[in-house]
Amino acid sequence: MLNFDYHIPTKIFFGKGQLAKLGPEMKKYGDSVLLVYGGGSIKRTGLYDQVVEMLRQNGISWQELPGVDPNPRVESVRAGAAICKEHSLQMVLAVGGGSSIDCAKYVAAAAHYDGDAWDLCIDKSKIKQVLPVFSVLTLSATGSEMDCGGVITNLATYEKIGGGVADQRPKASVLDPSYTFTVPASQTAAGTADIMSHTMETYFNRTPGTYFQDRVAESILKTCIHYGPIALREPENYEARANLMWASSWAINGFLSDGKANVWTVHPIEHELSAFYDITHGVGLAILTPRWMRHVLNEDTVSKFVDFGVNVWGISADQAPYDIANQAIERTEAFFFEEMKMPSTLTQLGIGDENFERMAKKVRKTALEDGFVKLTWQDVVEIYKACL
Amino acid sequence: MLNFDYHIPTKIFFGKGQLAKLGPEMKKYGDSVLLVYGGGSIKRTGLYDQVVEMLRQNGISWQELPGVDPNPRVESVRAGAAICKEHSLQMVLAVGGGSSIDCAKYVAAAAHYDGDAWDLCIDKSKIKQVLPVFSVLTLSATGSEMDCGGVITNLATYEKIGGGVADQRPKASVLDPSYTFTVPASQTAAGTADIMSHTMETYFNRTPGTYFQDRVAESILKTCIHYGPIALREPENYEARANLMWASSWAINGFLSDGKANVWTVHPIEHELSAFYDITHGVGLAILTPRWMRHVLNEDTVSKFVDFGVNVWGISADQAPYDIANQAIERTEAFFFEEMKMPSTLTQLGIGDENFERMAKKVRKTALEDGFVKLTWQDVVEIYKACL
Repeated sequence: MLNFDYHIPTKIFFGKGQLAKLGPEMKKYGDSVLLVYGGGSIKRTGLYDQVVEMLRQNGISWQELPGVDPNPRVESVRAGAAICKEHSLQMVLAVGGGSSIDCAKYVAAAAHYDGDAWDLCIDKSKIKQVLPVFSVLTLSATGSEMDCGGVITNLATYEKIGGGVADQRPKASVLDPSYTFTVPASQTAAGTADIMSHTMETYFNRTPGTYFQDRVAESILKTCIHYGPIALREPENYEARANLMWASSWAINGFLSDGKANVWTVHPIEHELSAFYDITHGVGLAILTPRWMRHVLNEDTVSKFVDFGVNVWGISADQAPYDIANQAIERTEAFFFEEMKMPSTLTQLGIGDENFERMAKKVRKTALEDGFVKLTWQDVVEIYKACL
Repeated sequence: MLNFDYHIPTKIFFGKGQLAKLGPEMKKYGDSVLLVYGGGSIKRTGLYDQVVEMLRQNGISWQELPGVDPNPRVESVRAGAAICKEHSLQMVLAVGGGSSIDCAKYVAAAAHYDGDAWDLCIDKSKIKQVLPVFSVLTLSATGSEMDCGGVITNLATYEKIGGGVADQRPKASVLDPSYTFTVPASQTAAGTADIMSHTMETYFNRTPGTYFQDRVAESILKTCIHYGPIALREPENYEARANLMWASSWAINGFLSDGKANVWTVHPIEHELSAFYDITHGVGLAILTPRWMRHVLNEDTVSKFVDFGVNVWGISADQAPYDIANQAIERTEAFFFEEMKMPSTLTQLGIGDENFERMAKKVRKTALEDGFVKLTWQDVVEIYKACL
């Protein structure tokens, strides 16, 4: 286990009706806020009304940044920062999924920056000061509600960049599982794949001696495998939504990666897919993951896949390591593509091989060189091709 | 899953040489501190010298409260508070195991209280203000380094009372596993039993829908079972010490109990043993736990024991539930009394049945009435007797 500093000060108000606790918490930081949200589903569900009523009751004035895209654009960040500056807003509140929260985190940073917001995505050392960020979560997926990261897309440059600093971590987040009852099946599936991928990015790792973190990672994977299909069948199953929601935060808040030399691989490979084709992030992850697994399964990594098979999928340990590993990968495929009913190929999404080389060459070097298994851009092309 | 508020702001500096980060962190809160420690082992190991050198380098002046007992006494709390008041100290730093940290937490509260320190143990609502608490951990056991609780003993009244408020949670703790290399085998075993008992107090619970928390609890138990015997055999095995140390914090920092109606049973029953006979807390827990398990195993609880057997001990699920449950209890006994070489009976500790009724009647009512299985004081006597 490597040395690490652990510090996750975000307050979580978890459960039904916990929104009421957010106002008094926000008042400790200010009395004006930018409300950041997406395509308007929060207006249809009535959550928007609840949030503005909560702000009103607590004497918090607000401006709005609606229309944040599923892969949030730097244009939204620029627009939000401009509103914050114009009205001297003191806080940023995202109501939505990871896209709104990610956008809010960069708005909060850009509100204190004189140059172009994209600078902060490219170089986080330029983030010097950040408005306090809060969130009301409506989708279990990115874990943005409890971590300090965000991913912003620049369609002009075909770039999708993830990053963040400690101050971008939300001061408080409301996790009310009932807000996810209306999440459609396809998004529930994509969100679950995202949670699992966050977990696997650190689980498939070669730092020795991280037994405890690895067992907790398996707990998150088992939670997704257990409750994902239930949430699909019974969208208003509180227990399923609650477990997925809490697991989503822990998959990526930092706990799992503490003590590990931790470089993600599958996310960066997927980011190029989303940047080029604007597909749903979780769908791209689900399609890539089993292909990546087959590509990196070898003598050095098989023991990790055995752990994965035995501890996560309950495969009998009384078999040859490669048999267990291959069954584990097959179970992963069956889970995503059968149980969770997700698209299983890029072809199904209308994506051909025309940009694979270009995309593969854009994947950041460290993700390929320092990940679980060292890859070249040619490996990435092979993985993309296996997804057709 | 029940509603909960999650907030664990303690900073953890984990790993070799991380003590260097504590000074700058403490300086944010003040420049004078009460140094609280136990029987002097930190002087023998050289840790005392490192800590005072760190204080010196950071310009932090200090007074000392040495000699805190393994079951810390209210007399120590009174003495520490008096020193804090006399010198207007701004912080409290415990260097040691849970006893020193628990004592420091109550010293920090009593330093701001005009009456007798024992009042604060009896009634935590009297704790209005608390000096910032820090810790340098030397024993993996109580989890006091990351939680807000403490247990103080009053030998005059045969009372041992646990409690605490949020402000008593350490602001920062140094978890350097190498500081536990010198912990003797018997204390390593007792500490491991303590970690496991904290975990089981919330794991054996009837709140439905806490699947994720339960799987994480199993992760902690597996970590103890995997590394406990290694730490006994190889006291300087960093990986074993590191995993036990990090698991000890997570067993009780609040994560496992969030979302559950959570009343502990075995700890309160053990507290009477320690209060009457001043035995090592973890030894009492190990002796009681399997007897308590046999006493509460019934039709309503067997499914939980099946989870415990299958997920923690790896017992095959293809057996009758009671067979799995009984094997799980036998494995628990074998772990404590054979693998971890702990005393297996109260008789071995020189304890007879003469005070069992008196002790059983002192166990706090809610622990018996609202625990995993409702118990009477007569049940507690039976459990004590089964430990002879």
